[in-house]
Amino acid sequence: MVCPAPGALLRLGRKQWRPVPRIGIASAPVDPKPHFCIIGVPGGTSCASFPDRAWVSLRVVAVLREAIAGIREMHRPMVSRLAVSTQAHEQLVDVTARVQAAVSEAGLQSGVVTLFVPHTTAAVTINENADPSVAQDILKGLMELVPRAAEYYRHLEGNSDAHIKATLVGPSVQVLVEGGKLVLGTWQGIYLCEFDGPRERKLWVKMSAD
Amino acid sequence: MVCPAPGALLRLGRKQWRPVPRIGIASAPVDPKPHFCIIGVPGGTSCASFPDRAWVSLRVVAVLREAIAGIREMHRPMVSRLAVSTQAHEQLVDVTARVQAAVSEAGLQSGVVTLFVPHTTAAVTINENADPSVAQDILKGLMELVPRAAEYYRHLEGNSDAHIKATLVGPSVQVLVEGGKLVLGTWQGIYLCEFDGPRERKLWVKMSAD
Amino acid sequence: MVCPAPGALLRLGRKQWRPVPRIGIASAPVDPKPHFCIIGVPGGTSCASFPDRAWVSLRVVAVLREAIAGIREMHRPMVSRLAVSTQAHEQLVDVTARVQAAVSEAGLQSGVVTLFVPHTTAAVTINENADPSVAQDILKGLMELVPRAAEYYRHLEGNSDAHIKATLVGPSVQVLVEGGKLVLGTWQGIYLCEFDGPRERKLWVKMSAD
Repeated sequence: MVCPAPGALLRLGRKQWRPVPRIGIASAPVDPKPHFCIIGVPGGTSCASFPDRAWVSLRVVAVLREAIAGIREMHRPMVSRLAVSTQAHEQLVDVTARVQAAVSEAGLQSGVVTLFVPHTTAAVTINENADPSVAQDILKGLMELVPRAAEYYRHLEGNSDAHIKATLVGPSVQVLVEGGKLVLGTWQGIYLCEFDGPRERKLWVKMSAD
Repeated sequence: MVCPAPGALLRLGRKQWRPVPRIGIASAPVDPKPHFCIIGVPGGTSCASFPDRAWVSLRVVAVLREAIAGIREMHRPMVSRLAVSTQAHEQLVDVTARVQAAVSEAGLQSGVVTLFVPHTTAAVTINENADPSVAQDILKGLMELVPRAAEYYRHLEGNSDAHIKATLVGPSVQVLVEGGKLVLGTWQGIYLCEFDGPRERKLWVKMSAD
Repeated sequence: MVCPAPGALLRLGRKQWRPVPRIGIASAPVDPKPHFCIIGVPGGTSCASFPDRAWVSLRVVAVLREAIAGIREMHRPMVSRLAVSTQAHEQLVDVTARVQAAVSEAGLQSGVVTLFVPHTTAAVTINENADPSVAQDILKGLMELVPRAAEYYRHLEGNSDAHIKATLVGPSVQVLVEGGKLVLGTWQGIYLCEFDGPRERKLWVKMSAD
C-alpha cells in the first residue's frame, strides 16, 4: 500500500480532505473504501487499511490518537525569548520573576530550564537577590579582576573586558522545575549580567519537560 | 460521552473502583455496560465505549497500557538531593561517587545529569581528582583572584568573596550518562565547591533520560 | 502466560525466529497457535495472545508498532565525539561549524545540545568569532588573571594555571537547536579552550531532542 507523506491531503469524502499529521494518527472512512488508518511518526508515515467490520478497532485507534497527541504535547518545543533593557554600562538584572512567568505560561510542570544569553558581552548567573549589595559586589569584583582598559587588548571596539567577563561567568545556566515552579535555593535569584550596556538584551528560556 | 477527569473514580463493579490515571489507560468492564476505555493524557482525558464483542480489541488495549506505562516511566522525574557536609571555610568536596550512586539508584541508563547547587556561596565544578594538590591549587588560585576582604565590598555579611567565586565557577554543570554510568574524562571528578563553610550543603542531581 | 524477556527469540514458524524488542511490539502468528503479541517496554515485557479472529486488531497493532518505533526514534541517544587538535599552549579553537555538522548528521531538529569537554586543563565557551582579536584578548586576559607559575602551586605537573582556568571557564555549555540549526546570537561562536597544549582533545556533543 502506498502511504501518503506527512502534510499530504487525505481524501475523506467527496469534498473532505485532511492533512496527514507529522506525528499522530489520522483515521477516517476514506472515499472509496476501504478504511485507512495513517500514522505519522518522526521520519515518515505508516498506514493500514481496514474493512468496515474494523470499526471497533478504530475506536481503539481513536483512543490512541489521544495518547499520541499527549505524547506529542509532552515533546513540543517550548522556548520563550525575553527582552531585557539594561540601564547601565554594567548591571545585574534580576529576571527570576520573568523566567517563572515564562515557565508558567508554557505550562511546564517538571523538567529543566536552560537559560541562554545570545550575546558576547553579557552573561547569566545565579546569586543572592535578597541583599542588593551582593549584586553590586559581584559587579565590582569582576571590574577589579578584569580591567576596563589594558595595553594588551587588541579588539578595537574597546570592550574586551566585557568579552572576558562573559566567558568567565558564562552564557548558559540550568534551573530545575518541579510542580510548575523554578526550584531555587532560598537566597538564589537569576541575573542577566550586562557588561557593556546600556543595551537591549535577550534572554532565551528553553524548557525541557521530563 | 462524558469523560471522567484524572483522579476521578471509575466504577468497575458493585464495590470496585479505580482512579482514572493522569497518563495511561484504564480499561474495565464497568457496571453496567457498556465497556469503557479511558485514557489519561497530559491535559485531559479521552474515552470510548465498547460493546462486549470488543474484547479482542481490549486485549490490544491491555498491551498498549503497558506501552504507555513504559513511556511514562521514560518520562518520570528523577531528582536526587544529596546532603554534603563541608569541613572548612573553603573546600572542594569530591562527590563523583555519590552522583554515580544517585544515577544507579534512579536507574538512568542514557541521558544527561544536571548538577545544581542551591546556594549562593558554593558552586559545582569538574576537575582533576587524581592528585589532590590540584583541588588545593584551584582553591588557592581563587583566593588570590578574589580577596577575602576589600574596601569596596558593601555586603554586610562579610562573605562577598564567596558570592563572587560562586558566580565565577557557576551553580550548574552537566554530565553525560551512557550505559548507566557517568561519562567523564580520565582525570575528571565532580566537586562541590565550598567558599563560605563549614556548612551543611545540598547538591541536586537532576537526571534527564534520552 | 509466561512472557519472554527482551532479546529472547520468539518462534514464528518452523524455522522463523524473531528477537523480542527491548522497546517496541513484536506481533506474529507463532507456531503453534494462538497468536502472540509481545511488547517490550523499559523494565520488561508484556504479552497477550489472540485467536485468529483477532487479525483486525493486529493490524492496529501493526500501526502502533510504527508509533512505538517513532517514539523510540525520538528517544534514541545522540552523541558525537569530536577530535580537536590544538596547535599552541593556549588557544581558542572555533568549533561552531563542526558542532553544527554533528547536529545535522544526527538529524536533531529541535532540542538542546550539551557540549562537554572531558579534560581538566581545557574548557568550552561561547564568545565572538567575528573579530579574531576577541579570542586573543580572552586568552591574554585569563593569563593575566591566573599566573603561569606561582609559589603556592603544589601540583607537580606545572599546569595548575590550566586547571584553574578550566574551572573558571567551565567544562560544559548548552546551545539551543531549532529547525535543525544551532541557535546562536549574531556574534556568537563556540570555542574549545586549550590551556595546556598543544594536544589532541575531545569535545562531546550530546543532543537531547524535545
